[in-house]
Amino acid sequence: MKENMTEVINVPLDITTKIKHLALIAGVHGNELTTACLVKYLQENPHLVHNSSFETHYLIAHPSALERCVRYIEKDLNRCFAKKDLLNPNCHKYEELIAKNIYAEIKEREIDLIIDMHTTTSNMGLTIIYSNPHPFLLQLFAAIVTINPDVKLVYHPLTTEENCFLKGVCELGFTLEIGAIAQGIIDPNLFEKTKELVYQILNYIQHFNQRKTLQRETILTVYERISVLDYPRLHNNLVAMIHPNVMYKDYEPIMPNQPVFLSFDGQEIAYQGDTVVYPIFVGESAYQEKGIALCLTQKQELILNK
Amino acid sequence: MKENMTEVINVPLDITTKIKHLALIAGVHGNELTTACLVKYLQENPHLVHNSSFETHYLIAHPSALERCVRYIEKDLNRCFAKKDLLNPNCHKYEELIAKNIYAEIKEREIDLIIDMHTTTSNMGLTIIYSNPHPFLLQLFAAIVTINPDVKLVYHPLTTEENCFLKGVCELGFTLEIGAIAQGIIDPNLFEKTKELVYQILNYIQHFNQRKTLQRETILTVYERISVLDYPRLHNNLVAMIHPNVMYKDYEPIMPNQPVFLSFDGQEIAYQGDTVVYPIFVGESAYQEKGIALCLTQKQELILNK
Repeated sequence: MKENMTEVINVPLDITTKIKHLALIAGVHGNELTTACLVKYLQENPHLVHNSSFETHYLIAHPSALERCVRYIEKDLNRCFAKKDLLNPNCHKYEELIAKNIYAEIKEREIDLIIDMHTTTSNMGLTIIYSNPHPFLLQLFAAIVTINPDVKLVYHPLTTEENCFLKGVCELGFTLEIGAIAQGIIDPNLFEKTKELVYQILNYIQHFNQRKTLQRETILTVYERISVLDYPRLHNNLVAMIHPNVMYKDYEPIMPNQPVFLSFDGQEIAYQGDTVVYPIFVGESAYQEKGIALCLTQKQELILNK
Repeated sequence: MKENMTEVINVPLDITTKIKHLALIAGVHGNELTTACLVKYLQENPHLVHNSSFETHYLIAHPSALERCVRYIEKDLNRCFAKKDLLNPNCHKYEELIAKNIYAEIKEREIDLIIDMHTTTSNMGLTIIYSNPHPFLLQLFAAIVTINPDVKLVYHPLTTEENCFLKGVCELGFTLEIGAIAQGIIDPNLFEKTKELVYQILNYIQHFNQRKTLQRETILTVYERISVLDYPRLHNNLVAMIHPNVMYKDYEPIMPNQPVFLSFDGQEIAYQGDTVVYPIFVGESAYQEKGIALCLTQKQELILNK
């Protein structure tokens, strides 16, 4: 059995970036109420997050879906932000048009940083997902995990062609995934924890813009997304569910040959890989149609220079 | 403060009923996967639940909704079974037509007992809900809670006019509500527990039909549904969520003046009633559109004659 390898990367301090316009976005999926309610609440109470060094813009991305409490109408909005689609006049599904409008607004307002807030039915707690390992973002994350050790970091490497997510339309952007929350639910505990996390992020940016020194971890634990597993299927019908020892166990290691699925008649189906992996989005409800039962990550450590 | 009253009702033994045709139904709501997968599995493996004294019929009630993983297409199917609607030629929404077909099938097959299996995002564990306190059903429930003390009993009194639920088309019928399960999720632990519960129910019926004596509780704890509470709203927008001390706390008592909601800015909103109540369907995702944040019950005890 191969050992799980940790990768060490030096990250220089970013002393050039400045954030002037930040976009706080939720409701990209209309059935993710907890984060949508939070952004609406902050929008109605801007004094709570006022910072002198940057402006915060609020966006409920998909009001129609939110009104109907559905993820989307025609197509997942958070798969409509590939550059080629945004510039393609033949893309005119409902969500493709919304994406084009959001893209125009983000350019118009000269947004420097996107925070796109989601909920997930999987047990991911407070997770930050990023695809651009920019020194500014890594410094931000390091400061956040120092004051909020509950926060997990997921790196989802993507080529420009692959990047169809809202967070990718800006150089600096990341997603928050908050769970476990059923679709259509406002979870009061996670509402509060997410609000605190947003305050911490905005507060860091204020200090960063003012070039104040902030305490931060120098070693970051990052879960790098490497692959996905689909449910075992027969003629497209599910024949197994996620194993009880894996379900709701996001970030808990899966060892080679460990059962990850359990067929309805009780047969265990083992993980075939030869390295330790850490699952995320375990059993995420909305991913079943995408052919994803869970995503696999490798744990790695990043060393940040002082 | 008034004390919570317990009501005592004598229930005579039922020695006349015999079950010949039982319907095991799931998928009335297309996003309740755990119970739908269970019924499909049992349908494909009928030897697991074969009983010599009665026939089991399986029904996935709303395959189109299940395929799309949505609760319904036009109208909640489990509100389409009022007698007047079933007999009304002007009711021809998609789900109304499905209801008429199911009704015809139940009559055609001479179904004596309906078990309609649902999941809920609220934390109701294994709950049986019934609207007809028929001696046969109470005896069945008494036997079930004896061998499976996890099971909770909810009595939802309804007039014939009010009864628009599938379980109401038969004299003998009840619902299983299994939770907490997010919509679109197969929960492996609750799949297994629900399967065991179904085995226990069918096994009881087999013994009952054969007039074998079964051990049973003589005092039943029943939660009688008395009212509902909606979220505090302003111009139809939610202004509060369920209080963290109540969310996911189904069946835990709410005292007069106890906070039940928490506004987004942290104000507690107290329960205005003057008796102890026990909440169910706390924060159920699908009930928000019905104007229900949670349902309130009163706890009572039923005494069954030996």
